Amino acid sequence: MTTKMRSEIAEQPAALRATLDALLPRVGEVEAIAARTRHLVFVARGTSDNAAVYGRYLVEAYAGRLAALAAPSIATTYKRRIDLSGALAVGLSQSGRTEEIVETLAWAKDCGAATVAITNGGEGSPLAQAADLALCTVAGAEEAVPATKTYTTQLAALAVLALGLGAGVEAGDLARVPDAVEELIADPGDLDAVVEGLAGVQGVVVSGRGMAFSTALETALKLKEACYLHAMGLSYADLLHGPIAVVDRDTPALLVAAGEGPTLPGTVALARRVTGAGAAAYAVGGGAELAGAATASLNGPALPEWVAPMGLIVPGQLLTEALARRLGYDPDSPRGLNKVTQTQ
Amino acid sequence: MTTKMRSEIAEQPAALRATLDALLPRVGEVEAIAARTRHLVFVARGTSDNAAVYGRYLVEAYAGRLAALAAPSIATTYKRRIDLSGALAVGLSQSGRTEEIVETLAWAKDCGAATVAITNGGEGSPLAQAADLALCTVAGAEEAVPATKTYTTQLAALAVLALGLGAGVEAGDLARVPDAVEELIADPGDLDAVVEGLAGVQGVVVSGRGMAFSTALETALKLKEACYLHAMGLSYADLLHGPIAVVDRDTPALLVAAGEGPTLPGTVALARRVTGAGAAAYAVGGGAELAGAATASLNGPALPEWVAPMGLIVPGQLLTEALARRLGYDPDSPRGLNKVTQTQ
Repeated sequence: MTTKMRSEIAEQPAALRATLDALLPRVGEVEAIAARTRHLVFVARGTSDNAAVYGRYLVEAYAGRLAALAAPSIATTYKRRIDLSGALAVGLSQSGRTEEIVETLAWAKDCGAATVAITNGGEGSPLAQAADLALCTVAGAEEAVPATKTYTTQLAALAVLALGLGAGVEAGDLARVPDAVEELIADPGDLDAVVEGLAGVQGVVVSGRGMAFSTALETALKLKEACYLHAMGLSYADLLHGPIAVVDRDTPALLVAAGEGPTLPGTVALARRVTGAGAAAYAVGGGAELAGAATASLNGPALPEWVAPMGLIVPGQLLTEALARRLGYDPDSPRGLNKVTQTQ
Repeated sequence: MTTKMRSEIAEQPAALRATLDALLPRVGEVEAIAARTRHLVFVARGTSDNAAVYGRYLVEAYAGRLAALAAPSIATTYKRRIDLSGALAVGLSQSGRTEEIVETLAWAKDCGAATVAITNGGEGSPLAQAADLALCTVAGAEEAVPATKTYTTQLAALAVLALGLGAGVEAGDLARVPDAVEELIADPGDLDAVVEGLAGVQGVVVSGRGMAFSTALETALKLKEACYLHAMGLSYADLLHGPIAVVDRDTPALLVAAGEGPTLPGTVALARRVTGAGAAAYAVGGGAELAGAATASLNGPALPEWVAPMGLIVPGQLLTEALARRLGYDPDSPRGLNKVTQTQ
């Protein structure tokens, strides 16, 4: 039986093409709104917050602007105002209907920010309606509870946002993403070995850094919500400040890196440290170098580092779906979760 | 045998008194530097990063300024510059010698920020030397690897910083903190029950929100580094976006809240949800209301919400120390960790 999650993973190349086709012509609109601002504030939760982490690194590394992740409770629970003049607030919600995010984006506007919505909920969604500019992803309906194609298309929208902020990147790289994702779905690497490696453990550390940090967080979230694994997503720098103690024979590490870029050497060194301690290290991406240092490996996309996260999450999605089935769970409907999460 | 960690936990009332005595007279120096800035950027890792989360909520909720947590890799790994004019960058490092943090604070100054150091390493430490203003905590030497008194005194320094930023709080509340911590050490509540509850599990979710979020993160970090527990620290809002699926009979939740404030009702509701799902919920603070909804409870400090985190971490420290010993580990020297962590 094919799960909805598996089908939706496979729909990502088409969803990415449609989203890029829809949003790339709108870079000028982002430029216009960005010209009035200096720094960014991302407003999101859950999977969307992991997408925001990608946006944050893109904007800081390539557009030279400070980018913060908002604490929505300041708006919704504490009901305080902060000075957001000169800020561009970017709200992300797949449904566009998570009230906390809609409320926080409206609050940001009240506090002086210009506002952008990134949502798969359409122009009519409350989040899009609350924003000065809405970048709507074209992922189609997503039925499995664990978000997949709505996440990767959010990353595509964030890449378009970065172009509008004048990021020093090669826009043409984006056109390569859908094909690279297609290749990964066809050949994710040694999926069976990693599924078996994780089938017998209760916890796993998922680590990546810089542009790949968002992928580590999102992979950990997927494994928590659909496989009920104690998955701890961490930057490898933070990992060395304490949590490395957790890694042992029963707690393997999933290490994520793009096939190029300045965080790759540190990730390879971490893989050696983990296996040297007698634990298993599973590579996600990182090319031959990371695979060579790992116990088993999943392929990453053949893409430049700045767009790699759109592909780098795909092996983690496939792993989550296969591991959930291996453990006897239904990946489409994890216990205790609904498709649209309301928090306050 | 008394561990170093246990002794250092007990030294916190004196360390807090000494730190407040040293730093409260310096509020005017913070005011002078703050007058030239609009928003804040905290630069830290590990335990210090958890302290920064407290600083972030203090500054946003009470001083009306945007506060971001820096991604040090932008400076140290990607070697990019971002526009930090108008920013006040606050670097935190207990030793004052973590090169990544020293380098990132120096980078922030290069990028246009005014800079403050918060460190227990003294005026001569590299971090203090790199900053325009150094707020040195007076915790004395800390020998156990898991930070305790250097963490709570960092929180005290952040409270002083917030006063210098014009936070709308009652400065006199700070004088009550050392006594409240002393009371908690003398009577932490049902420590034995919580130690036994966690002794048989591999993972735990630690959750809190707003001002208590930093305490949840720091409690989870302590349990990871000294007890090798798969401890997942999460805001309760984020918890409901996926990770709640992890909570089950074998994965209890530690729920942290101040005894007052707008996040308490949601934390009580979460405790009911967790116990309703058949899992154990252990309260940390939150007064009679949270204790009543929990399986067992640790006491919190009798303090206003904005200073409560300086006490709220204490039961978590005591729990970590006792649980490590219960599990046969040495809390003073966790495997794989050094006192000064160097990352790059």
